[in-house]
Amino acid sequence: MFDFKYFTPTKVIFGKDTEKQVADLIKEFGGTKVLIHYGGGSVVRSGLLKKVTDILEEAGINFVTLGGAVPNPHLSLVYEGIELCKREGVDFILAVGGGSAIDSAKAIGYGVANDGDVWDFYDYKRQATGCLPLGVILTMSATGSEMSSSSVITKEEGLVKRGYSSDFGRPKFAIMNPVLTMTLPDYQTACGCTDIMMHTMERYFSNGGNMELTDALAEGLLRTVMKNAVILRDEPENYDARAEVMWAGSLSHNGLTGCGNDGGDWATHKLEHELGGLYDVAHGAGLAALWGTWARYVYKDCLPRFKKFALNVMGVEAVGTDEEIAVRGIEAMEDFYRSINMPTNLRELGVDPTEEEYADMAHKCAAGVGGKMGSAKVLYEEDMLAIYKQSL
Amino acid sequence: MFDFKYFTPTKVIFGKDTEKQVADLIKEFGGTKVLIHYGGGSVVRSGLLKKVTDILEEAGINFVTLGGAVPNPHLSLVYEGIELCKREGVDFILAVGGGSAIDSAKAIGYGVANDGDVWDFYDYKRQATGCLPLGVILTMSATGSEMSSSSVITKEEGLVKRGYSSDFGRPKFAIMNPVLTMTLPDYQTACGCTDIMMHTMERYFSNGGNMELTDALAEGLLRTVMKNAVILRDEPENYDARAEVMWAGSLSHNGLTGCGNDGGDWATHKLEHELGGLYDVAHGAGLAALWGTWARYVYKDCLPRFKKFALNVMGVEAVGTDEEIAVRGIEAMEDFYRSINMPTNLRELGVDPTEEEYADMAHKCAAGVGGKMGSAKVLYEEDMLAIYKQSL
Repeated sequence: MFDFKYFTPTKVIFGKDTEKQVADLIKEFGGTKVLIHYGGGSVVRSGLLKKVTDILEEAGINFVTLGGAVPNPHLSLVYEGIELCKREGVDFILAVGGGSAIDSAKAIGYGVANDGDVWDFYDYKRQATGCLPLGVILTMSATGSEMSSSSVITKEEGLVKRGYSSDFGRPKFAIMNPVLTMTLPDYQTACGCTDIMMHTMERYFSNGGNMELTDALAEGLLRTVMKNAVILRDEPENYDARAEVMWAGSLSHNGLTGCGNDGGDWATHKLEHELGGLYDVAHGAGLAALWGTWARYVYKDCLPRFKKFALNVMGVEAVGTDEEIAVRGIEAMEDFYRSINMPTNLRELGVDPTEEEYADMAHKCAAGVGGKMGSAKVLYEEDMLAIYKQSL
Repeated sequence: MFDFKYFTPTKVIFGKDTEKQVADLIKEFGGTKVLIHYGGGSVVRSGLLKKVTDILEEAGINFVTLGGAVPNPHLSLVYEGIELCKREGVDFILAVGGGSAIDSAKAIGYGVANDGDVWDFYDYKRQATGCLPLGVILTMSATGSEMSSSSVITKEEGLVKRGYSSDFGRPKFAIMNPVLTMTLPDYQTACGCTDIMMHTMERYFSNGGNMELTDALAEGLLRTVMKNAVILRDEPENYDARAEVMWAGSLSHNGLTGCGNDGGDWATHKLEHELGGLYDVAHGAGLAALWGTWARYVYKDCLPRFKKFALNVMGVEAVGTDEEIAVRGIEAMEDFYRSINMPTNLRELGVDPTEEEYADMAHKCAAGVGGKMGSAKVLYEEDMLAIYKQSL
């Protein structure tokens, strides 16, 4: 077992109509001039943005708005947000949306609270010493950004996608109303469930210092998301299932499911980042398309964990050798992906890379991680290339 | 499923030698003049107090000390601490110890940050509007006070024991080094494990709005504590087992295992409070002595939960009627208590109340809860009396 830090200061307000508390929460955390930051038009079309601005107006809280945060949110919009905040004297950012709006809001917050170029933090050049306080009204369960320390930003020049983590960026509050996620397309819901599970699975498949309590929580969370993902496939407006998935999304990436281990594997995420850089694919779908191949490539080097996963998460019977049990666990996970209409290979994802593209992704991936990555099995560029190609 | 709030801002620093970080953490949270508050002589004898004061001296942090926090910490000591803090200009409290020192530190913090009598908060007369920031070096896994909002104080006059909860009192940081719990007597370790499990069980046995994810986390936590409590019976210096129990103690009472339900039952805790007021018994042992009788008294009114508990926590086979499964789950928990040398009735606890004492406890318990209590089954004074008497 490794030593660990655990810090989840975000105040979670969970349940129906909780967005009505937004003005009180902003005031509680000292906000007087707010940037409302959101993504595409869905929060406009649903009426949520209007509802929020009405509440702030009624509470006498001044605000400016900035939309346009896209999946893999862009650095240029972050710069625009920083300028806007400085010009308007903004002292609090409210992200209304999913991971894109929240990640973008975190980056704007770093940019306002620190001198110099905000990209420096994402480029591993220096550490932030603060962040403008921010709050969230969550409309999509997936990235866990509403309680996490991390954000991912894409620099358009060269399409460089980078993540930065700092406790300063953890949201002060997160308003989570499961009803707000009911209008998502089924495909996005399934992608979200996949991403949520992967945040815990990346931590679970580790060869370093695992903790029984953490494992028990992780396994319980994974079983719960699987069960409710299937319910949501058939009943997208099932409130309880939406709530189970939404809360699991936060707990899966706030650190809880990694306490005591070596930090986890994260190879599937890193492989997917390059895939997402080259093709316009949804993050969750990309993860599902790669995971099975990655798992088969590495499971012999992390056999006790894959066996435990098969037995305690996938409900595989304890019959046969450890390897057989592990493989049946991987197959069961792929069956689950298929059951919620997620791809289990690149072809099903709609992607068929050329030899050059394979090589390019593997090379970029290796470069991004300093040559090697992974805890279940340490992977080098040749391994990354092999996994990409075997994923077809 | 009910709406819920979840707020656990405490920064947890978990692992070996983590107490060495105490000066940096105090500075991080703005402390310049510290009250070090502790309990009996164990932190003196172990050398921990000396170690902490050496670290603060070296870091140039001024401090004063106040020992003497006893189990069911006394209001008179709280008053003394408040006076000391005001006189010395203390701006941060460091509790070194278990639940007694932490609870007492919280009460002192409320007293310094609010005008008037601090007992008003515990007497349900008004709400605190702040608390002096406090940090913890934990030496005992049991109450979960290191991450919780609650504290329990006893007013010596009339032996009135009252709890008060406020988010203002949540510690800013909690240093958790499992090694520091290794010198505890075996009986105290077993009492701690019982208390930890009961904090989750009180939330679990509820008839209102349970959430699958919360249940899965709760069940995993309970299984983990049971397994490691038995390991610690035989190997008190097993680091990993100490760590599992220590982290479970925090998660079991920080709110995580109650998200989405009606708040839980808490009857066993309230029954034990009166028992602990009349007899000098350890809190955990008192809980174990009462739980089985309470469970048999109420299980038919909360049968789905008792069945689920039997199957998912106690590993009972799914054979027979629901009632039979539920009863076998209760019996299995009593077997577990016996296996770690905890009592399962009042006689084993070493207590044999008179008729007057039974009546007095039931009457005080009923008065303390406004006449009725419980979610698994609503209990009135006559029920409380019956449970006490059947517990013999």
